[in-house]
Amino acid sequence: MASEKGVKLLNFWVSPFGQRAQIALAEKGVKYEYTEENLMDKSELLLKSNPIHKKIPVLIDDGKPVCESLIIVEYIDEKWAGKASFLPSDPYARAQARFWADFIDKKVFDCGSRIWKLKGEALEEAKKEMIGILKLLEGELGDKEYFGGEAFGFVDIVMVPFTAWFYTYETFAGFQIEETNPKLVAWAKRCMERESVAKTLPDPKKVYEFVGFMRKRFGIE
Amino acid sequence: MASEKGVKLLNFWVSPFGQRAQIALAEKGVKYEYTEENLMDKSELLLKSNPIHKKIPVLIDDGKPVCESLIIVEYIDEKWAGKASFLPSDPYARAQARFWADFIDKKVFDCGSRIWKLKGEALEEAKKEMIGILKLLEGELGDKEYFGGEAFGFVDIVMVPFTAWFYTYETFAGFQIEETNPKLVAWAKRCMERESVAKTLPDPKKVYEFVGFMRKRFGIE
Repeated sequence: MASEKGVKLLNFWVSPFGQRAQIALAEKGVKYEYTEENLMDKSELLLKSNPIHKKIPVLIDDGKPVCESLIIVEYIDEKWAGKASFLPSDPYARAQARFWADFIDKKVFDCGSRIWKLKGEALEEAKKEMIGILKLLEGELGDKEYFGGEAFGFVDIVMVPFTAWFYTYETFAGFQIEETNPKLVAWAKRCMERESVAKTLPDPKKVYEFVGFMRKRFGIE
Repeated sequence: MASEKGVKLLNFWVSPFGQRAQIALAEKGVKYEYTEENLMDKSELLLKSNPIHKKIPVLIDDGKPVCESLIIVEYIDEKWAGKASFLPSDPYARAQARFWADFIDKKVFDCGSRIWKLKGEALEEAKKEMIGILKLLEGELGDKEYFGGEAFGFVDIVMVPFTAWFYTYETFAGFQIEETNPKLVAWAKRCMERESVAKTLPDPKKVYEFVGFMRKRFGIE
């Protein structure tokens, strides 16, 4: 494995975590080989590259694997340092960006999964929590162009994949994110003007179809 | 708040997360004001400084709060960059250190809490999981002096506070970490030779007493 040259990404198309790596690579102009994993029958390469978590995404750089999406994005930022940095240079601004990236990482996917998995009161609770999460993010974004200020950066890369899931969250929870979070939706549209994002994010309807398929598999109807 | 000068740490003595910040500050030789929080009646300053999570530790640097222990340790490393760095300079080595720090952060405290909170089969399961976690960490440490190699670094700072909990885990789960993980225990002793660690870590018996008090509060006996 260690003798293999070049950059590879082991991924699954709908994963917001994998999309972070794709956007980061595109922003840095890094050419790489994309491998779509079958998560029902994971490849030997995936199991060998991420023996601890056995999860995508895994970035393999010259045979050396990097796991966990936030760590992958920071690795890409530091390895291909010649292009504009995702993180600011000031230590306090870096800490703030890491704080929000960590917040998104801990909250959004989990709460979103509860929205499409649960019903009744539990669903209402998840919906309320999602509205709270998005409100906090809207507050942090404020009137800035990007979370990073004028530059598309770390927090933008970490959050923007979830915008392809907004339609799914809205449909199952019965609310309109544009009504509660107009700035966040405007930011999502601005991000989509970037080639790195537009070429990476799946059609929200495809995400919704995928979730429908997952619900069937979990016996939710 | 923003006009206040100097460094403050809002903490609670037994928290392994807060101890990471204490060790990092001591390693960098940063003087700071220590404030012990009453977690049953959190201070206005804590609630104002960490409105999202409302948790210790919070580092306040010239009035500006930094939250979440891994982010605090990286902030300290980057802000006081003149002293030896906690993270190596090579991007791949940095990613590896971040991976193990994240692994420890996600696994050890949660599994340890299940050890002192649960009984019967659930306790056995937590014990088995803890043995697995420590085995992975022992494997990563190998024959190195520190997780960081020859230098005491990021992963060491993140993990070492849990060694003050080993006695508690051993007592409730009925196993001897020194038997299963001799290298890890030897590493813990090496770390304790550092003033930054020795002055920060509480007596393992005090941790055990604290856990006994918590068990009573939770009605576990």
